Amino acid sequence: MQELKRALEQEQPRINAALARHAAEPPAGSQAVARLVLASGGKRLRPFLTLLTGRILGCRDERLYTLGAAVELLHAATLLHDDILDRAETRRGRPAAHLLFAPATVILAGDAMLAKALLMVSAFGDPRLTGCISEAVMRTVDGEIAEFDILRNPDISHQDYLAVITGKTAWMLRASCELGAVLSGADASLIAAAADFGLELGIAFQIVDDALDFSSGTGKPRGGDVREGKVTPPLLSYIASLAPDEAKAFRERFRQGPLAEAEAEAVCAAVCKQRLDLRAKELAASHLASAALFLKRFPPSEERALMEQILEYILTRSH
Amino acid sequence: MQELKRALEQEQPRINAALARHAAEPPAGSQAVARLVLASGGKRLRPFLTLLTGRILGCRDERLYTLGAAVELLHAATLLHDDILDRAETRRGRPAAHLLFAPATVILAGDAMLAKALLMVSAFGDPRLTGCISEAVMRTVDGEIAEFDILRNPDISHQDYLAVITGKTAWMLRASCELGAVLSGADASLIAAAADFGLELGIAFQIVDDALDFSSGTGKPRGGDVREGKVTPPLLSYIASLAPDEAKAFRERFRQGPLAEAEAEAVCAAVCKQRLDLRAKELAASHLASAALFLKRFPPSEERALMEQILEYILTRSH
Repeated sequence: MQELKRALEQEQPRINAALARHAAEPPAGSQAVARLVLASGGKRLRPFLTLLTGRILGCRDERLYTLGAAVELLHAATLLHDDILDRAETRRGRPAAHLLFAPATVILAGDAMLAKALLMVSAFGDPRLTGCISEAVMRTVDGEIAEFDILRNPDISHQDYLAVITGKTAWMLRASCELGAVLSGADASLIAAAADFGLELGIAFQIVDDALDFSSGTGKPRGGDVREGKVTPPLLSYIASLAPDEAKAFRERFRQGPLAEAEAEAVCAAVCKQRLDLRAKELAASHLASAALFLKRFPPSEERALMEQILEYILTRSH
Repeated sequence: MQELKRALEQEQPRINAALARHAAEPPAGSQAVARLVLASGGKRLRPFLTLLTGRILGCRDERLYTLGAAVELLHAATLLHDDILDRAETRRGRPAAHLLFAPATVILAGDAMLAKALLMVSAFGDPRLTGCISEAVMRTVDGEIAEFDILRNPDISHQDYLAVITGKTAWMLRASCELGAVLSGADASLIAAAADFGLELGIAFQIVDDALDFSSGTGKPRGGDVREGKVTPPLLSYIASLAPDEAKAFRERFRQGPLAEAEAEAVCAAVCKQRLDLRAKELAASHLASAALFLKRFPPSEERALMEQILEYILTRSH
């Protein structure tokens, strides 16, 4: 996976330069946006996917960076609004952390970045690009609304969970790949394969992310999602593993409100002891296998090999 | 102005039907959006401008309703986010009113409507339409950020004020007209005239709106903007009318924080006594005169006559 690390580190400065350039354009409100975006950091996975997908399909157009920057701006915009939502939660009893900005600034900066990103894409004059990015925003928001609706509901199905993460995470990764494919001039079936690849990769990415919350590789206390009432595959497996009485009691407790750190820690310990987080990773692996099949439709190349390494990275990362 | 009232009442059901149709489309999150939009009411001025501008330029395309609905959705989205911003203010001491929705729902519904509106426009496949609407969103947000930055600052210039309202209000009205003009297939100079017409109309609309806050035609206590720290032309005139010592004291008080109702009422009484609100209306009238000149570039028609009545209505409305 050294090649992947090297290739990503090589591209990051150019991706960041494109981001800085577009975020610093007028109108003036975007200046505040620029600071917010550039401060947020991140690996720039989404623009990297745009670049690789375009190049796999033979695209050498420098404007891949513009499309990648647009997706990253959208991603940053949704993070800003998530931040507000988390803060709203925080007002109901938990301590406020990282209050860097006033709510108004965060909401408006998010809106500005969203509009800026859509304007950057619409400037290409290709309705396939604009449709792709607009739909991705709508699906992402839709997933976030759905996630909010199922919070603290331990009776959701696995399908409900998949619907939520497909919206809130996978559609934007799908768009990252599809935009690169459209710019490459590939035919419709290859564009569809790129989109499907991104969607499967995105689903797997979120499943692994949710499973990692139960282990303690990140340094911070594990079980944050459980405490907040997020229902993910390891938690569903955990509930299914309980005796009927215990399951009933846990469901009631879970519905009541935020779990204490000790309660969440007990759940995490049980999940890890029974390797229920690994079961979730197997689920992720099946989506990555689908992604790999879509990838095989493209001709072999250095970039395709890097994509294969991304799939491997998603499964094996520990934080 | 009876013709205007009749024409607007005749179009409202069709505009509302278009709004309901688009807001009820999948994905599921849009269902919540639909309820929010349809509950918000409003005169539907923006879609009406789109219809009239298109028809003035000979357009009989039913899709004018789609473009109008998109602008109205965007307007509703910005109102939703404003609602959140106002609520943020409200937490700092004033009583919370109309708390119909959770902050998360309001933010996400606003995002969904924004993305939905941009998707509706991008489906036309004309980059001029998408560019127009994306830029209008960005300018609107930019104006809102700028307004936030100059809150409680009594030393801003008239130009600062104009820059704020041009962004937060006039650009979306500009887009309402420009979209109709683009769909009509008119040449670039007529599209530019339609856009300029909408911008001047929008600036005048906001100046009058801000002046009305100092009179008591609406039933609710006047002076709400003054209390919140919004600097508008009548307030700037009021400060200029004070003796140097009084002006200095008022500036300091204004910077400190929200004014009490009695303090704001005293300002309003002084503004009305000196007819400073009428001076603001004269300013609005000059922008409406510019708008009227742009309107004259179009051939005479029933719709052009209705537009002239809209200009008259903007100046003479009392609430």
